[in-house]
Amino acid sequence: MAAAKTSKEKHQTVKAGIVVIGDEILSGRTSEKNVSYLAEKLGAVGIQIAHVRIIPDIEEEIVASVNDLRRKYSYVFTTGGIGPTHDDITAKAIARAFGVTLHRNAEAYRRLKEHYHSDDFSPVRQKMAEMPFGVVKLIDNPVSVAPGFVMDNVYVMAGVPEIMRAMLDGILPDLEGGNKITSKTISCFYREGEIAAQLAVIDKKYNRVAIGSYPYFRNGNFGVSIVLRSADEIQLQRAVKDVKLMIKDIDNKRL
Amino acid sequence: MAAAKTSKEKHQTVKAGIVVIGDEILSGRTSEKNVSYLAEKLGAVGIQIAHVRIIPDIEEEIVASVNDLRRKYSYVFTTGGIGPTHDDITAKAIARAFGVTLHRNAEAYRRLKEHYHSDDFSPVRQKMAEMPFGVVKLIDNPVSVAPGFVMDNVYVMAGVPEIMRAMLDGILPDLEGGNKITSKTISCFYREGEIAAQLAVIDKKYNRVAIGSYPYFRNGNFGVSIVLRSADEIQLQRAVKDVKLMIKDIDNKRL
Repeated sequence: MAAAKTSKEKHQTVKAGIVVIGDEILSGRTSEKNVSYLAEKLGAVGIQIAHVRIIPDIEEEIVASVNDLRRKYSYVFTTGGIGPTHDDITAKAIARAFGVTLHRNAEAYRRLKEHYHSDDFSPVRQKMAEMPFGVVKLIDNPVSVAPGFVMDNVYVMAGVPEIMRAMLDGILPDLEGGNKITSKTISCFYREGEIAAQLAVIDKKYNRVAIGSYPYFRNGNFGVSIVLRSADEIQLQRAVKDVKLMIKDIDNKRL
Repeated sequence: MAAAKTSKEKHQTVKAGIVVIGDEILSGRTSEKNVSYLAEKLGAVGIQIAHVRIIPDIEEEIVASVNDLRRKYSYVFTTGGIGPTHDDITAKAIARAFGVTLHRNAEAYRRLKEHYHSDDFSPVRQKMAEMPFGVVKLIDNPVSVAPGFVMDNVYVMAGVPEIMRAMLDGILPDLEGGNKITSKTISCFYREGEIAAQLAVIDKKYNRVAIGSYPYFRNGNFGVSIVLRSADEIQLQRAVKDVKLMIKDIDNKRL
């Protein structure tokens, strides 16, 4: 049946990689804030983050990571390194990753020139209009004007969280996701070892539900959150029911 | 002179990679908390984080990332996936990365058996004593007993931050770092474009100081933090002085 086929096709997941470019994260000076935000927003449109790399401001590292991930995943999102200073080398690295030259993007140049008074539009600021040859789509920057850009399936964004978020808002409507993944969390005060055997049985039973078990330790108490994720609502509901029954079963044995 | 040579040798940096294993981070459900902690603590003993990967609970992904990073860096630290549940596959993946089999580690088994009453020491908990063949060094777990382990230059730790931190405390004295990197931060209320040209000159002048420029945007105001990092105290002090002079210079032009 055509309808059934379409529905099955839609279940395919769309995966993305993230490349976080920034010495400040690797030195521990700054906590990484963009990954969880990206994961949440992209997940909501059916794009799953499959791999993240946090790398230093070194051209070879950016080239290697972007080339590796852009071939493996539908989308790659980079954050950081698109400003005017000497350590902002992302555009140059992306050009090299694609084997093209850097050149002045006319539209980016126009936006920057309009924003800065002609006195203030210095060579270092003009550098922010330098993009890989072949870029036709810019990513709007409503916060500080200097745009990001799209090169094939690679989305190049700012690292400052406020700017990255504004940029993401602009590109989200254009991204094509797969089926939305729904997630359910069930927490209990047992320890992982007490639920592991039965949980493994449930995990095997539902081939389209990813079941994760996340122990936590708070105020001297152990507990575990069981997270079930699936694009298949029916399987998900069944698996959730099984997990709840499993916990009830352990409760009863304890009484 | 021998003394000078030793001093120069000591300036070499020791680099490490981190592999964060966990679907919960990639789904956006949990914010990653271990990287900045590891970066800070390791940085303090002269070990620089050069590369981080956040990957899902998939054996092939763990094998590929661990093999890639352990050949490139002096140390690799992994977090996550060493518990008793079906999604805890790190030990198995590390064994495969090294081309060895999993086997029961006698000391880990002894610790776990002592901790759990014999009734409670179920097969899923016994699984936590399964480690790659060849492991001789365990990583103590003062929080929940189940130990991590060291395989060559790969340090396998828990993902729960409270446990990871306790494990790290135990291994820190054994790690050999290079020279300690000192970091100085100078903030100003200029925008990056206003300092970029002069900062690039300072960056070129000091070949042993890494200078990063981190713009921020808070309450509607832009600013930039300039971070200088080096194992060479003298070069660092000179570069800091130059940056301060640069800012004073811009201040004066503004008056």
